[in-house]
This record gives sequence, structure tokens and C-alpha cells, in this order.
Amino acid sequence: MTPPRRGGGGTPPPGRRTPKARSAGTGGAPHRQAGGPGPTQAGAPGPRQAGTRSTRGRSGARADQGSLGGVQVEGRQAVRELLVARRRRVRQVLVGEGADDGPLADLVRLATEQGVPVRHFGRGQLAAAAVTDAPQGVVAHAEPIEPVDVEELLCVSRALLVVLDGVTDPHNLGAIMRSALAAGATGVVLARHRAAHLTPAAMKAAAGAAEHLPVAVVGGIPAALAAARAAGVWTAGLDAGGGVALWDMPVATEAVALVLGAEGAGLSRLVRDRCELLVRVPMLGPLASLNVSATAALACFEVARRRATTSPA
Amino acid sequence: MTPPRRGGGGTPPPGRRTPKARSAGTGGAPHRQAGGPGPTQAGAPGPRQAGTRSTRGRSGARADQGSLGGVQVEGRQAVRELLVARRRRVRQVLVGEGADDGPLADLVRLATEQGVPVRHFGRGQLAAAAVTDAPQGVVAHAEPIEPVDVEELLCVSRALLVVLDGVTDPHNLGAIMRSALAAGATGVVLARHRAAHLTPAAMKAAAGAAEHLPVAVVGGIPAALAAARAAGVWTAGLDAGGGVALWDMPVATEAVALVLGAEGAGLSRLVRDRCELLVRVPMLGPLASLNVSATAALACFEVARRRATTSPA
Repeated sequence: MTPPRRGGGGTPPPGRRTPKARSAGTGGAPHRQAGGPGPTQAGAPGPRQAGTRSTRGRSGARADQGSLGGVQVEGRQAVRELLVARRRRVRQVLVGEGADDGPLADLVRLATEQGVPVRHFGRGQLAAAAVTDAPQGVVAHAEPIEPVDVEELLCVSRALLVVLDGVTDPHNLGAIMRSALAAGATGVVLARHRAAHLTPAAMKAAAGAAEHLPVAVVGGIPAALAAARAAGVWTAGLDAGGGVALWDMPVATEAVALVLGAEGAGLSRLVRDRCELLVRVPMLGPLASLNVSATAALACFEVARRRATTSPA
Repeated sequence: MTPPRRGGGGTPPPGRRTPKARSAGTGGAPHRQAGGPGPTQAGAPGPRQAGTRSTRGRSGARADQGSLGGVQVEGRQAVRELLVARRRRVRQVLVGEGADDGPLADLVRLATEQGVPVRHFGRGQLAAAAVTDAPQGVVAHAEPIEPVDVEELLCVSRALLVVLDGVTDPHNLGAIMRSALAAGATGVVLARHRAAHLTPAAMKAAAGAAEHLPVAVVGGIPAALAAARAAGVWTAGLDAGGGVALWDMPVATEAVALVLGAEGAGLSRLVRDRCELLVRVPMLGPLASLNVSATAALACFEVARRRATTSPA
């Protein structure tokens, strides 16, 4: 079933609204400043396609090289995607006993075809080499994933970015990357310090998404949000007290950065203040909060849903 | 925000559709058999409110007593909700060093007020008593969570059930329960065997949701789906090959059971055949699958969104 398409791209769709003011008015300007590039950028062709990782403009990111991680990859799906994506050199693949005629045989074949050394380990050896609890019989070592410049992420046409403010659980980071990529996200922004990076646990939870989704590592999230705003990317913070229900988020079909805070603490004050709108997931039931990776999945797929159902003909 | 309720069950709302046939036609009847109670049940008052756990009709469930788990609860949020919900007796609360003037003080006060013994443990002792990696300084022991009869779940007015077919990771079970409760789910159905139950890891990931969301444990998922159908609850399987996009799921505003399969394997053949419709999360990007807990969150909140936005005036 194809999503219904709206005819005539020139006329604003009936449901179109400008972003709402934050619920608890702080006196700040509720709308993007006039003349900001945001509305005009939507739909304009960008310099590169979403989801591809450019090798240009890396000079600013080289100082971060190695800080992002990704060198140890565990679990069948993550290792398979590492080999299939061929984005970076794989140094070796370690497989557990019985791999040759078991479900790992395909991975061993892939590695061998690519000239990647395969080492066979006993079960205890493999468990010792693994960092996660369940490596599923396979551990790979690869070159680190290089971060990209945040500016690269901001100039993608109709960007869908996920900005993490204080998410420290690697499992959450990986789960967020997996859902975000599946929803069509074009990049992730992480803080350099006090933030989860691509540990083996994150790589496993990402299930290969880390091979495809570009990640920028920034010194501070507030400055990155200012840069996003300047580049015409809306900044929407997910916040339990947000004045706009996720289903009514007005900027879903434009370039947007979804900003998620630490579980428990949520968005930091400065980051909350820098977001142009604050969006809440409407909650039922007696509990007050969702897991940050569930919130991220809902927010990313809400953007995907709206883009699929409201795109011009 | 309370969910809008449909006034007058007799008139179908304008957007009402009958469920669509499965995409790859198997020759099976695409629509619910005429005379099924489903459409007429929508909006009818049920014998009890969603989200409450009846103590009636338990005889059939007593054989399962203890099999569901829930006796060990770790982590601040899960223990807090255990104490606040007061659904079952708490035998003792173990807290780590420095709890009295730290963030655990509130939990200690709650337990003491309720006459629950509090034992102070050293850090090593607490870690030894804990099953999860990060008990956050607190472990509680309580009476087990008693399962309910599946029939209890099926007769709730405008039920929103989550049925798990082969989910074996306790973390996924807990995460699914947390998201489901926040989306207004009225119950969960698990298989007795080869399925995750309420281990400490599940309880922690559920973050208190297990105190509120009734769970039925059944001998077989296919039989439970047949019972759901007979009770007028639509059965919608989440399946990557489903013929209906989640955003177009036609039965969201009626009583519905969302059926989720094991990660990797997905729905078993028999369960897939028993579902009245198969629904897919529309995916973008190079990866083929979502985590089952992300899928569950998306499906439950899609029902919540539709119920909130499509009820008649």
C-alpha cells in the first residue's frame, strides 16, 4: 500500500502550521526568526544524498579520530553489516567453535572472500575476547569509525538528525541508531564528553546501523543546536513537558534535528532553552516516562510517517 | 490527557474501514467472518476498566502461580513503583551504602512507612544480591506477580493487548511492557514456555510497568489468538512482509491485540496464519529489521495516536 500523496507542491498543505511556542512561555521568541533559511531549504537538493558518508571536509573531525569507537564489533548482525557495508577495513574476525557448518558459516565465507583473516577460537577464548554478554559466536576487529563534521550533517537536504544530550548507556545509543536509520535518519550528533560512544555494546545494539549512519562528535550540544538553527534545520526537543504533542509536531516534513536528553534527567536546561520547539510523547497510564530509545524510535518514525503521508506530488 | 471515547457504538466513524487482506494473498478470508462480535464490541462498556487488575476469575490462572516471576526487583524506578503501587506484599528492601542521605532515602522512607523491612548492605553484598548489572543501590524481594486469565484481558472494553510470540530476551519483555503501558495497553499475553518472563532484568527494564500491566500466561499463542478473535478482539501481527503499513492499520480504534514475534525469526508460521491482518512498520535505510521492543513501542503508540485523533466529536 503506497501512502496517499498530496497533489501540488506549491500550496501549503491545509494542516501546515508554524511551530508553536513552548508551553510554559519563557518569553523567548516562539517562531524561527524571519529570514532564517529553514523554510526555504526544505526540498532543495542537498550536496549529497542522505545516508551516505562523505569523505570530504574531514579536517575538522580528525582531532576526534578514534574517540568515537567502533573498533570491536560483536554479534552476528553487527559483524555481517560491518562486512557487507565495506565502509572500513576489517582487521580480523574471531569465530567460536562449530562456526564453519553453523549459522556463522556465511560470515566466515564473507570475511574470507574479502581477505579478512578469520581466527577460530574455543568457546571460552571467544567469551574472553568479547565485551558483551552474548557475542553470538563472533567478534570482529576493525578500523575505528571516523566521525564527520556536524556541518556535513546539517547541509543534507531535508535532514533528519538525532541529537543526544547526555545519553550515557551504550545500549541506548545503539538502539537509537538502529531505529533512527530505519526511519530514514541522516545523522547522529553526540557530545564528546559524558556521552556514550560506539562501544561493543553500542555496536551490537545498533545491529549494523553504525556502519551506515554518520555520527558527528561535538564539544557542546547547545552550540551544535545554534549551528543547526543557522543552517535552517529545526531543533525539536523531546520533553515530557513539551507544549506540542508529537503527533502535531509542525516541522516534521522539513529539515529537523530531534533532541533527546538523558534518561531520568531529560534535557539539560541550556539545551532545552536552545530548542525551537519542545515536543512531548502523549502518555497514558500511571508511569511518567518512556525509555529514551523508545522515545527516539517514536519521534524518528513520526517524522517518517509524516514525510511519507504529506510529501508533495 | 484522557483518551477520547467513542460516543454511541452503533455508527461507524467516517474513517472506518474493514481490515484489508494480507498482501500476498493466501486465499484465506481477508475479513473477519460476518457475525463476529468485533465491530459491535467497540465502545461497549466492559466489565472493568482498562489497566486495573481484577482479583476475580483467577482459578484458571492459579496453576501458573509463580511461573511469571517478579519476585526480585532491582533499580530505583522499579522498586519505587513496587512500593507505590501496593499491588503485592514486599518482603524486604536491600539498600547499598550511603542510601539514607542519598537518592535512595525516599525509597527507604516509603518502605519504612509501609512496614517493609529495610536491610543495609555493603556495596559488594548488594552487588552479590543483585542479578542485573546496575541495581542502582537497591534490590527488593516481593511476592510473585500473579498472572491473570487471558479471558480477563479479552473482555476489557476497547482492549489494547500485546501478545508476544517467542520473545526470549527479558530486557525486551520489560522494555515492551514499559512502552505498552505508557501507550494505554490493557494487558500482555506471554507463552508459558520458551518465552521471557518477569526476571529481575525484565522487571528493571519495565521500570515499574509490571506492577500495573496485567499479564496472562498461556499454553499456546495460536489458541490465545483464536480466543481473542472469538471475543471480538482484532488480531494484528507485526510482520516485515505485512500488507498494511502501520500508519494505515484499520483496526486501531477498536479492541485489538498486537502480536509480536521473536527477533530474527519473527512470527511463527502458525501465529502468522492466525492473525487477521499483518501490519508492517514502513522501513527506510539499508537494514531490514527493527528491534522488537522498538516495533512494539511504534505499534502501541500508533494505536494510541489513532484513538486520540480519530474519535468522533
